[in-house]
This record gives sequence, C-alpha cells and structure tokens, in this order.
Amino acid sequence: MSDRIGLFTGSFDPITKGHVDLIERASRLFDRLYVGIFYNREKEGFFTIASKERMVKAALQHVENVQVITSHDELAVDAARRLGVTAFVRGLRNAGDLDYEANMNFFNQELAGEIETVFLLSKPSYQYVSSSRIRELIAFQQDIAAYVPQSVIKELETKDEE
Amino acid sequence: MSDRIGLFTGSFDPITKGHVDLIERASRLFDRLYVGIFYNREKEGFFTIASKERMVKAALQHVENVQVITSHDELAVDAARRLGVTAFVRGLRNAGDLDYEANMNFFNQELAGEIETVFLLSKPSYQYVSSSRIRELIAFQQDIAAYVPQSVIKELETKDEE
Amino acid sequence: MSDRIGLFTGSFDPITKGHVDLIERASRLFDRLYVGIFYNREKEGFFTIASKERMVKAALQHVENVQVITSHDELAVDAARRLGVTAFVRGLRNAGDLDYEANMNFFNQELAGEIETVFLLSKPSYQYVSSSRIRELIAFQQDIAAYVPQSVIKELETKDEE
Amino acid sequence: MSDRIGLFTGSFDPITKGHVDLIERASRLFDRLYVGIFYNREKEGFFTIASKERMVKAALQHVENVQVITSHDELAVDAARRLGVTAFVRGLRNAGDLDYEANMNFFNQELAGEIETVFLLSKPSYQYVSSSRIRELIAFQQDIAAYVPQSVIKELETKDEE
Amino acid sequence: MSDRIGLFTGSFDPITKGHVDLIERASRLFDRLYVGIFYNREKEGFFTIASKERMVKAALQHVENVQVITSHDELAVDAARRLGVTAFVRGLRNAGDLDYEANMNFFNQELAGEIETVFLLSKPSYQYVSSSRIRELIAFQQDIAAYVPQSVIKELETKDEE
Amino acid sequence: MSDRIGLFTGSFDPITKGHVDLIERASRLFDRLYVGIFYNREKEGFFTIASKERMVKAALQHVENVQVITSHDELAVDAARRLGVTAFVRGLRNAGDLDYEANMNFFNQELAGEIETVFLLSKPSYQYVSSSRIRELIAFQQDIAAYVPQSVIKELETKDEE
Repeated sequence: MSDRIGLFTGSFDPITKGHVDLIERASRLFDRLYVGIFYNREKEGFFTIASKERMVKAALQHVENVQVITSHDELAVDAARRLGVTAFVRGLRNAGDLDYEANMNFFNQELAGEIETVFLLSKPSYQYVSSSRIRELIAFQQDIAAYVPQSVIKELETKDEE
Repeated sequence: MSDRIGLFTGSFDPITKGHVDLIERASRLFDRLYVGIFYNREKEGFFTIASKERMVKAALQHVENVQVITSHDELAVDAARRLGVTAFVRGLRNAGDLDYEANMNFFNQELAGEIETVFLLSKPSYQYVSSSRIRELIAFQQDIAAYVPQSVIKELETKDEE
Repeated sequence: MSDRIGLFTGSFDPITKGHVDLIERASRLFDRLYVGIFYNREKEGFFTIASKERMVKAALQHVENVQVITSHDELAVDAARRLGVTAFVRGLRNAGDLDYEANMNFFNQELAGEIETVFLLSKPSYQYVSSSRIRELIAFQQDIAAYVPQSVIKELETKDEE
Repeated sequence: MSDRIGLFTGSFDPITKGHVDLIERASRLFDRLYVGIFYNREKEGFFTIASKERMVKAALQHVENVQVITSHDELAVDAARRLGVTAFVRGLRNAGDLDYEANMNFFNQELAGEIETVFLLSKPSYQYVSSSRIRELIAFQQDIAAYVPQSVIKELETKDEE
Repeated sequence: MSDRIGLFTGSFDPITKGHVDLIERASRLFDRLYVGIFYNREKEGFFTIASKERMVKAALQHVENVQVITSHDELAVDAARRLGVTAFVRGLRNAGDLDYEANMNFFNQELAGEIETVFLLSKPSYQYVSSSRIRELIAFQQDIAAYVPQSVIKELETKDEE
Repeated sequence: MSDRIGLFTGSFDPITKGHVDLIERASRLFDRLYVGIFYNREKEGFFTIASKERMVKAALQHVENVQVITSHDELAVDAARRLGVTAFVRGLRNAGDLDYEANMNFFNQELAGEIETVFLLSKPSYQYVSSSRIRELIAFQQDIAAYVPQSVIKELETKDEE
C-alpha cells in the first residue's frame, strides 16, 4: 500500500501550543505529515514568513514524520494535489469552526474529490487559544508563555530588537 | 511502522447510505477499519442484532479492509483497547452532533488518552439521513430506497414476512 | 391562477399566543390556511383531542380564511397532498428549531417535492412560549394567561371540574 | 383579494444557482416576485451593477412572474413600501444565517410591521454555495460552472476581455 | 443595604467538581449562597436524597457562606421567594446550555421579575463533566475520581455494600 | 466583608436601552458598579468620547451606585485590577455572543484569576438591539427612539447641528 500523507495548513501567525498538540496527534495517523505555512505575498502578517518558518520548524523538530513547507497565493487543494496528499487535517474548536470548515470541506471535495479531510478536536485547555488572540496579548504586553511554544518567545525577543 | 487501525461504531438500526459513505472514505485512512455494531442486550432495537449484522456485512462487502464486529454492553474505549485501535472514526453532520461528540471525545481521551478520535463530515446529501428518521419512514410505509443500502430493503422484506 | 393553500400543523397541547400570532401572519400569505391538529390515537396528550379542537377553533375564529382540521396517525406530507396544499408553514424560534426543521424539510421535499415549506420567525416576546412549558406552568399552578388565548383558560377551568 | 407581492433582495455579486433555486420556489408563492439587486453607489463590488443586472435577468427570464429591479443606498424596508410588497423572501442556509436574519427580521417588523418576512431553506446541495465563495474560486481560476447559472459564465468571459 | 442572597439549584445526582467550582466562585458574589438539592418525590434518581445531601454537604463544608437545602416538587421560583433570594446562579457550559437557560430565565423573570439570574461559565476543564456522564462511567465501572469530590467516592463505596 | 465591585465595559457607540436595562439589573448585585467606556485613541467611533460620556452619564444618573469611567488603550483586566473589581458583568444576547464571551472569559481568568465574570441575559425585547444596528438606523434616518435612552436622541440633535 502506498504511503498515507497528511497536510495541515495555517498561517501560523504565530504557531500556538494548540497547533503543536494537533500536529503531534495528527502525525501518528499518517506516514508523512506536511505542515504548510500558507501566506499571501501582499500581506505578510504580524510575523514575517521567514520568522514563521523558524518558529514552526523549531516547535515541531521533535515530530519525526513532519515536514514543514511554505506556499503563497495557492489554493490548499492545488498544493495537496502537487504533494500527493491523502487527507487534509483540520482542528475543530467549536461549533463556529464547524460552520466554516463544513464550507471549506464542501469545496475541497468538489475541487478534489479524491482528497479527504479529517478533523481532530482541540483539547479543552487549548480551545480558546488562537493566533489572533496571541497577537492581542502581545500588543498589550501580556505574558504568552503558557500558550505558545518556546520558539515564539525567542522570535519575539529578536523582533523587539529590530 | 505498525498497522494503523480504525474503529467506527454505531447501533446501525439500520445502516444508511450515509454510514456506508463515511466507512468507505474512512477505510482509505487505515490499514484496517473495524465497523462495530454496538448494542444493549436488554433493548435490541427495531432490527435484531442478527439482522443488523447481515445488513451491515452485505452493505460493506466491497470494502476490502473493513471487518464487521459486534459488541454488547461494553464501552467503546474498552473494545478499542482490546482491538489495538489507533483511532475512533466518527461522522459529523452538524453543530448539534459536534456538542455530543466533543463530550464523548473528552471522555475517550480521558479514559484512553492514547486512542485518537478523527471526524469526517457527512456529505450534504446525507446530512439529514439518520437511522431514526429511516425507522419513522418505515413506520409510515414510505419508500426508503434512496437512503439505505440494498441489504436493508431485503431485510425489511423478510421482516415483513415474519 | 389557482388558489394558494397553506398548512400549519402542530399538536396544540395547548395552543399558545405564539401559535396564534404565527397563524394570523401566515393567513395573509395564502388564500386558505389549514390549521392541522395532528395527533396519535394511542397517546392523546394533556388535553383531549376534542378539547384541543375547541381551543384552537375559538382562538382562531377571527381569522377568516383559516380552517381547522384534525388528523391522526398520518404523515403531514400525506395530509398536505390530500388537501392540495401549496406550502407548509412553520414557525422558527431559534437555531435549535432550525436543525429540527431542516431535517423535516429535507424529507418533506424528498417525499413531496412539489410542496414547499415556508418559515416565519416567532416574535421575540413569544420566543420562549411553548406548549410544553405551558403544561409545566399548569402543573405548578402558575398563571398562564399571558401566554395562551382565552379559550385555553376556559378549557382548563372545565378540565379541573372533571 | 389584492395581489400578493414578494421581494427577494441581494447584492448578487454574482447570482448563484442557490439564488435561482430559491427564487423559482418563491415565485410560486406570490402573484409577483420582485428580485432586487441592492447596491452601494460607493462600492460597486466585483461585478458592475450593469453586469449584475444582465446576469440576474438572463438567469431568471424563465420565471414568468419575476421582475428584476435595482436599488442603491436604500433600506429594503423603504423599497418594499414603495413597491407595495406583502412579504420579504429570504433564504436560510444554516443556524449562522438565522442569527443574522432574526436580527434583520426584528428591525423590518419594527420599521414596517405590516410587511412580513418568509424564509425558505436552501437545498443541501446549495448549502455552501455563496457569492463570496464564488468570487474566491474565480480568483483562483477554478471552474465555477456547477454553482452559477450560464449567464455568469458568459459575463465572466466578457469581463476577462476588458 | 440588605444582604445579597444567591440560590444555586440542581439535582446533584451526584455533585461534580464542576458544581463545586461554580459554587465556590459564586459564594464570593453573595453574602449567603443557598445550594438547593431539588428533587421529585416520585423519582429519586441514582443516589437517594439522603445520600445526595451527605455528598453535597461534605463537598462544600469548606465554603463558609454556603447553606445546603433540599426541596421537592416545588418551582425554583417559589423556593427563591420563600428564601428571600436576590439572584439565581446558573452554570453555562456551552451554547446548548444557553438555549435551555434562556428559556428558564424568561419564565423566572415572568414569574418573579424581582429575582435576577446570573450565569457563570464553566472552566474548560469541567466543560464536559456532567452528572449524567458520571453515572454512565459508574455503570461501566470506570474511575471517576478526577471528576467528583471525595465525598462521592465514599458514598459510592457504601452504596456498593448495600 | 469588603465591598463587592462590578465592572461593565463597552464602547457605548451609542448606549442603548439594552445596556441601560443590564446596568440597572447588575447594579443590584454589587455595592458599586463601574460602567467603563473603553475606547481606542486612534479610532474614536461614530460619537466622540465626550459625547459618549454625556450620553452614558445622563442615561444612568438614576442608578445610585453606578459610577461612569473612561479608559483608553487598556486591557479590561488591567482596569479591573486598578479599580479593585470583584467581577466583570457582561450581557448575553445569544449563542453567538456566548462563543465570543467564553473566549474573553478564558483569557480574563488566565490573566486575572481572582476576578470573576458574571453574565446576565438580555431581555427578549432588547435581544436584537445593538449599537451597530442603531448606527445603521441613524445612517438611514430612521427613528431610533424605541431603542436608545433620551440622552442619545439629544446628542444626535446636537451632532446634526455641528
């Protein structure tokens, strides 16, 4: 049987402990798991793409079968086809997420019927941890160590020195 | 790497085309997929357990790596441990389902942290097809051929002859 | 053009001011509006069917193009076909209602594609008024005059004398 | 009895097969159904207003009692009063839609108590088809023929030639 | 100013760590907090009322201003009036809870306008912990020590000896 | 026992009758209730901060233990600590609000564990009344007297004269 390959995409602006938990869990379900940092060339986000890549790679280096990639201005479905992906992996935090995901899922199935989407539920302790909330906490100079991997803290220190 | 094993449980009273679609899709994600007909010895349901087993097996015989099992008065978690399961597979139809599943998922993770739960979204066309609705249609003598596999229609004919 | 005929069904156990408001509003959309008291011969409910009929008719006698009917052990779709109905009319109080109604709607469209279902939203002031809540208030001997038409109060007085 | 007149409004940027289905179904409930392309003079959207009008008219020319109108910078309620409308017609796709619509409905009833709002549920197959999703697919040069009427495909070809 | 008095009601069949957390937090908002074990004389539940009372009292003896009471076949509103209550205290775990609570709240305000209802959100770690789930775990002989106070474990041991 | 102090924050752009109702009800639960007009120095909103302050103060002058404050570019949690607040007070209108609030609540508890958050449900009649909807009605020159306190009407008249 050919390898089963997963793809977990996001903007990771920044990566959170919730992401790391989902990726660790997902990595056990696939022979290889791609973690795709998707971005828009025109609007880079709070962290630069280089910075995101460093943070994500450092946070996931302990997960053997994970491979971090970047992709810009591309539909997830097109990237998935290019990489020979078996299934997208998505995290679900609440019913609101589900509405959005069901919509995405419908079009992914329409555009690439052969590529499945599997969902994992976020752990209750990570249910309210999102990248946008982290950026807010940073703006108000609050401690974020409980919600992000160590690599984000490091990157933030460098960022401040810029 | 050891085999990845999935477990899809239900009461299958009766199995629907929605179930069959989910099981076909899930079968591609695992080396082996158990389909577990779970029941209560005290309350058998509309179809007998023998009848459910016939219907489920016939409906899934085209899916190679699926194995149908039955289990009574047992927690899904205990069955999963016994079978060396990697992950439960669950279908999600809507936000209401998610509340119920998140609850189940929490306890499954608490009781058997090592066993993951993965969710697949039902296709829109099967979103409203449930076993309980099928039983209602049967009670009102409506045509159910659009919603259930052929094996259920056959079993119903036999049932009527009883 | 042939007449447009609506059908509003319920168990009306008892009819509430919320029902009356919906029926008044719906009556303006159709040439004729049937109000169908649907029941199960085996389980009559809190009020007898005769009692429900009296309450509903009295509460709606001011709405000219409404005709009250009763139906037992029949699918709404079968009754609608028999009566030449253009559209079912349903009230929506909240998102929970919508899940249930979407399910019903799907099967009504499957079973009787030609019959439409239209929804009206309950007014905020009637949003929490349901027959089951009314029965609870009756059980605890609370005043229900604010939530039901006068005909229910009358029927209750007679009921107590029984 | 005077004519019953419906009004279905939207920005139709572009019109989808979901819209067409709702409008066809709604047209059977009214003597006349206005389809109102509402827009903001300041922000025209992806398609020009002239383009929207061509697409909508072509997509609905088979529905006899439909009349397409345009309106800018006007409350729907004011347009409805001007046109002698009996009821607004709105599509509901999911519980999220309902929250938004209940809010709209409340103010429409407050501002124009005499004008009713009726809701039709989207068919499951159109549940995830929205104008904004269509625009996304166009941006990523995906095939949209399954989700929009032929007139949109034509208009797009012309647009590309601009 | 007169004392502010809270009332937290439930069937506590059994009391969970989620209840205890809510009651501790609520106790800081009131001068006195009544914890009311409400029951039906006809259906006692899994634990006897005497047993429930022992478990609740033991679990809350460290909260100074809490007073445990029992009440049967009485509306919460009637109990609240009798006790001079300022506000009901309710826990909210999710959107499903909210629908139920909004309904209750409406009638409490209608029946006893002067008595307020305040809501506290359950902590994420207790979000899925409910009495009914605990009873299920007991039925399947699973360890429940993580979800209930020590007094429930003790009571269970005695129960088993019966 | 030390005083119990509440904090109700908002942007009040403008204050609505829904806000006033919640604040009146909340004022009975605390010895002192701060009403905090929070704003961003960079984006003032539709009404100026001076105008908001006049409207809020006038609308609440009948509630004795309420004190209106303003705060800019500050986390609510930091303001609460500074003011010795016992609990935040928040209004809940629907399930959508709950998702947002649960998220806020989680971070407030993380950042300031000692400060509680209590929720009150909006009355059905104010369920759809929001500041953003009011601003829309103003833009379309509709009458808003039913939804806002008298002080907003006054301020608007002055605003028009500017």
